[in-house]
Amino acid sequence: MLLLRRCPRLTRLCSVRHAATPALAPCAVPCSAPYAAPYAAPCAARFSSDTDFRESRWSRRWTHAAAGLLAGTGAVLAYALHQHQAEKADAITGPPVDKLPSSSPSSSPSSSSSSLPVFSQEEVSRHRSLEDGAWVTFKGGVYDITEFVAMHPGGDKILMAAGGAVEPFWALYAVHNQEHVLEILSAYKVGELSVEDQKKQQHLNPSDPFSADPERHPVLRINNLKPFNAEPPPEILTESYVTPNMLFFKRNHLPVPHVDPAAYELHVEIQGASAERGGTLSLTLDDLKTKFPKHTVTATIQCAGNRRSDMHKAKQVKGLNWGIGAISNATWGGAKLRDVLLAAGYSPDDAKWAKHVQFEGLDQDVGGTTYGASIPLKKALSEDGDCLLAYEMNGETLPADHGFPIRAIVPGTVGARNVKWLGKIVVSDVESSSHWQQNDYKGFSPSTDWDTVDYKTAPAIQELPVQSAITVPADGAVVDRDDEEVLLKGYAWSGGGREVVRVDVSIDGGKTWQTAQLKGSDEGGTAEAAAPPPGQAWAWKLWELTVPLPEDEQEMEVVCKAVDSSYNMQPDSILPIWNLRGVLSNAWHRVHVKIDEGGE
Amino acid sequence: MLLLRRCPRLTRLCSVRHAATPALAPCAVPCSAPYAAPYAAPCAARFSSDTDFRESRWSRRWTHAAAGLLAGTGAVLAYALHQHQAEKADAITGPPVDKLPSSSPSSSPSSSSSSLPVFSQEEVSRHRSLEDGAWVTFKGGVYDITEFVAMHPGGDKILMAAGGAVEPFWALYAVHNQEHVLEILSAYKVGELSVEDQKKQQHLNPSDPFSADPERHPVLRINNLKPFNAEPPPEILTESYVTPNMLFFKRNHLPVPHVDPAAYELHVEIQGASAERGGTLSLTLDDLKTKFPKHTVTATIQCAGNRRSDMHKAKQVKGLNWGIGAISNATWGGAKLRDVLLAAGYSPDDAKWAKHVQFEGLDQDVGGTTYGASIPLKKALSEDGDCLLAYEMNGETLPADHGFPIRAIVPGTVGARNVKWLGKIVVSDVESSSHWQQNDYKGFSPSTDWDTVDYKTAPAIQELPVQSAITVPADGAVVDRDDEEVLLKGYAWSGGGREVVRVDVSIDGGKTWQTAQLKGSDEGGTAEAAAPPPGQAWAWKLWELTVPLPEDEQEMEVVCKAVDSSYNMQPDSILPIWNLRGVLSNAWHRVHVKIDEGGE
Repeated sequence: MLLLRRCPRLTRLCSVRHAATPALAPCAVPCSAPYAAPYAAPCAARFSSDTDFRESRWSRRWTHAAAGLLAGTGAVLAYALHQHQAEKADAITGPPVDKLPSSSPSSSPSSSSSSLPVFSQEEVSRHRSLEDGAWVTFKGGVYDITEFVAMHPGGDKILMAAGGAVEPFWALYAVHNQEHVLEILSAYKVGELSVEDQKKQQHLNPSDPFSADPERHPVLRINNLKPFNAEPPPEILTESYVTPNMLFFKRNHLPVPHVDPAAYELHVEIQGASAERGGTLSLTLDDLKTKFPKHTVTATIQCAGNRRSDMHKAKQVKGLNWGIGAISNATWGGAKLRDVLLAAGYSPDDAKWAKHVQFEGLDQDVGGTTYGASIPLKKALSEDGDCLLAYEMNGETLPADHGFPIRAIVPGTVGARNVKWLGKIVVSDVESSSHWQQNDYKGFSPSTDWDTVDYKTAPAIQELPVQSAITVPADGAVVDRDDEEVLLKGYAWSGGGREVVRVDVSIDGGKTWQTAQLKGSDEGGTAEAAAPPPGQAWAWKLWELTVPLPEDEQEMEVVCKAVDSSYNMQPDSILPIWNLRGVLSNAWHRVHVKIDEGGE
Repeated sequence: MLLLRRCPRLTRLCSVRHAATPALAPCAVPCSAPYAAPYAAPCAARFSSDTDFRESRWSRRWTHAAAGLLAGTGAVLAYALHQHQAEKADAITGPPVDKLPSSSPSSSPSSSSSSLPVFSQEEVSRHRSLEDGAWVTFKGGVYDITEFVAMHPGGDKILMAAGGAVEPFWALYAVHNQEHVLEILSAYKVGELSVEDQKKQQHLNPSDPFSADPERHPVLRINNLKPFNAEPPPEILTESYVTPNMLFFKRNHLPVPHVDPAAYELHVEIQGASAERGGTLSLTLDDLKTKFPKHTVTATIQCAGNRRSDMHKAKQVKGLNWGIGAISNATWGGAKLRDVLLAAGYSPDDAKWAKHVQFEGLDQDVGGTTYGASIPLKKALSEDGDCLLAYEMNGETLPADHGFPIRAIVPGTVGARNVKWLGKIVVSDVESSSHWQQNDYKGFSPSTDWDTVDYKTAPAIQELPVQSAITVPADGAVVDRDDEEVLLKGYAWSGGGREVVRVDVSIDGGKTWQTAQLKGSDEGGTAEAAAPPPGQAWAWKLWELTVPLPEDEQEMEVVCKAVDSSYNMQPDSILPIWNLRGVLSNAWHRVHVKIDEGGE
């Protein structure tokens, strides 16, 4: 884990309890600890340049502190920026001259100054770390924020923006939308982005079916570019109960279709329905929004391949190498699928023959084959099934990457059945004939290989099994012995509306267990208070546990496993659930954390 | 495992494929293999008395053959008895004189003969094995069937009756109800049961609340006598898809109440219902049978403590030491709970406040406290929930041990909520306040002990997690290397109507896996053909797998694990799911089987 440099004064912020404290306050004790930094921060603290920074206990403490601060980013950021400005006024220790461009930064981040050098995007891209310098662009300006990293109240996450534009990250964390922030940034301006790069637009290549794909947030970890498949970094994933749209994992099977909302029509067909009582229905987007009551459902969607990388590590599998972030949670708004099926002429008599509801997407491959999947009719029709034809995601218009204008939301069911860019719905006696229903997204025995697999022998994945993962700290993280304890965070979810009722956490590889605190929503209610009706727990639980560092160990193997309302639990190990497609990877999640003993 | 002595001629029956063959035929080859038996069977085979029986490869083959024959008991028994009679006619080799009483057996099993000695039940009880002699009683006669054991087409299961009356076992296996069987038995009569013991009745002790408990089948393995808790032996459990009533596991919390069906009344109360539209209802047994449509549901019931002994072995728990037999499957007939609740005045408006349906039993402790439990209202009301007020079990009147006259059947839900001897139903905003709902039948973390347990922190168990076990062979069984393969059998089930879709079986302790054949019903349909609607797979699957004996191993560690339609799987090991009450014991099931290399 990267050791960050930080002024000890701000570091002390973190000796206060990390995430549990709603509003952190910096300690008022004058900062006098020995501290060395190649890029000394503009701070009133005194620094001792002959101390190896990497050995500094302060710096190690900050490593942990940065993680702890994540939860309180907003309040701390606002305060710290203000504090920084105040400190600048009486004692500025500028960055080493050899590390800065010769010209002084402009005081206005958006203004152009002829005295500043011009950099290409390529040059900016080379500054992505503390070692190489951390540069960002903002509205045409180039900023060397290397020295600010240690002061950033949001911790080292600021480095995720390094080498590129800072705007997408500020959009993510609304706290940056303040005058103070612009003032801070202005102090670090080192140049202008070349006009060419400023004007640079995404070149639409008519021969590339993916060229019209929407822009994505740069923080996403890309598993595949075309089609686009990406997941948010784990430590960001569990920052909020509802995942911001731009961070919600993206799992596209085909190019994103460009749908004109004015021309859009959703076709609904009840295959066996007689003509006289209907059986087909075409609905415009406006019809869906105005002719049916709007319902909202908060539901977690997980890809069947979430945590495939864990399975792949144990034994090679075929599929996108998802980490633990192919899962996200959102509040969806739209018409009830049930209402639309009834409007299309579905009647209880149809239950005699109808068994499935097929979805067909508007996304298609070069041969014109569209994405498709189906769900059991019972799920689609159930009052309590909460299936939606969603046009909203977290209160916003459904984004292009998530199925604009309409996505089928099938709570409790694998992502693959939550069909995006929905073009057609068919009530049928058979499942979707699509590749993804028939020959993919199924589970097999560990003994089944590509020579022996017979997709007909396994049911299509619908509900998913109980799952959980540790998002903080990351695997390989280092914590400071002096911190005495460490905050563990993660998520837990189960398919089929089964509520997560307990998360067991171990720091000794599974020998002994503690029970984590479950958080049902951003409102911070306890699990009991927020309990949904039985069988309708569509959303995940975030969990936290603060554990004392074990006294006689220099490493912890942190493990988590969840229990759902049917008391299903996660299997212990990967190999016995291994399958050739690497789906359903829900064995105990493990991360290794080192304890740095330090020493004065 | 007991090595049985058997005529090699009949043994050869088993060189035909065991369970897969619907009708087994004995081979016609004259029997001439060397064979020694302390109790030589009456058979045309020649015996060599100087060969150690226990070393005989024939005998070891029979050990396995007996297990293999279990599945085909009926057809084989009828045939073999007939065959035996035919053989007796031309070549009877009687039992050794020193092993038989001096008098000849009577030709009529039920007739009394003054020339035969009189034995007490106590004397009979001492003959429970091949070593001590295997005696049974039948209608006042005493029979030494030691020599018949090796010829019994049902294998060594006949020894389960040794030392007592044979009638309950014949009642269990209807094939015995034939003239031939009585003829065979007559040949082994050695005496009369004393008149005193013949007349002996169960002494009803008025101070013992359990003295009126019904008689139980002696094959049941008793975990606790008062209250009565017992399970069928595993190898019998999976002989039939539907468990015979007398073998169905018994789990009583209190004495069995003696209910007069003519006076019985079931009281139903909708707590919040206004008086004008009803809210209370009393129904006689006749009302339940005639005023509501009768529904039948085949549903497996499992005790939360099934397989507790596995958990107890890993680390001590409190509770009845159930083996793998606290689970059984039956077809229940009765009124739909939903229909009765609607008749009692439940209306959709009540859903605003009503959340639970409480059941109260007529069984009570000495202080008058009755057994009680509750289920979610949604489950009780669901059209697809299939909850019954059952008065029939496998086509018979509900037996006293199973809740006569009415039992609540809550498919997919832990046995404890399937309340027997049902006296009262209450629709309420709260769960049952009974001990069994509030302070028992809940799952906890392995770290929770009796000092720290807080029952309020865990939800009452309703749906159970996915489960499976190996019933054949038994742990410690010995198979013969010459058999080259072994038949493995077991059951698999999951709660909440989730169908078992796969059972993985390993014979190397879990390193490699094979997929077992699933049997959905006695009709032998494949899993697909018999697939119930999604979410309504209330009954277990029996499974079988014939595996070649591993070449370089002298022992197999057989393991099974099931996968349900939500792709939930069983956890690998016990300790991480250990809990102080020993419930929810669903880790992989393991049995150890030895391979006897034998040698000519």
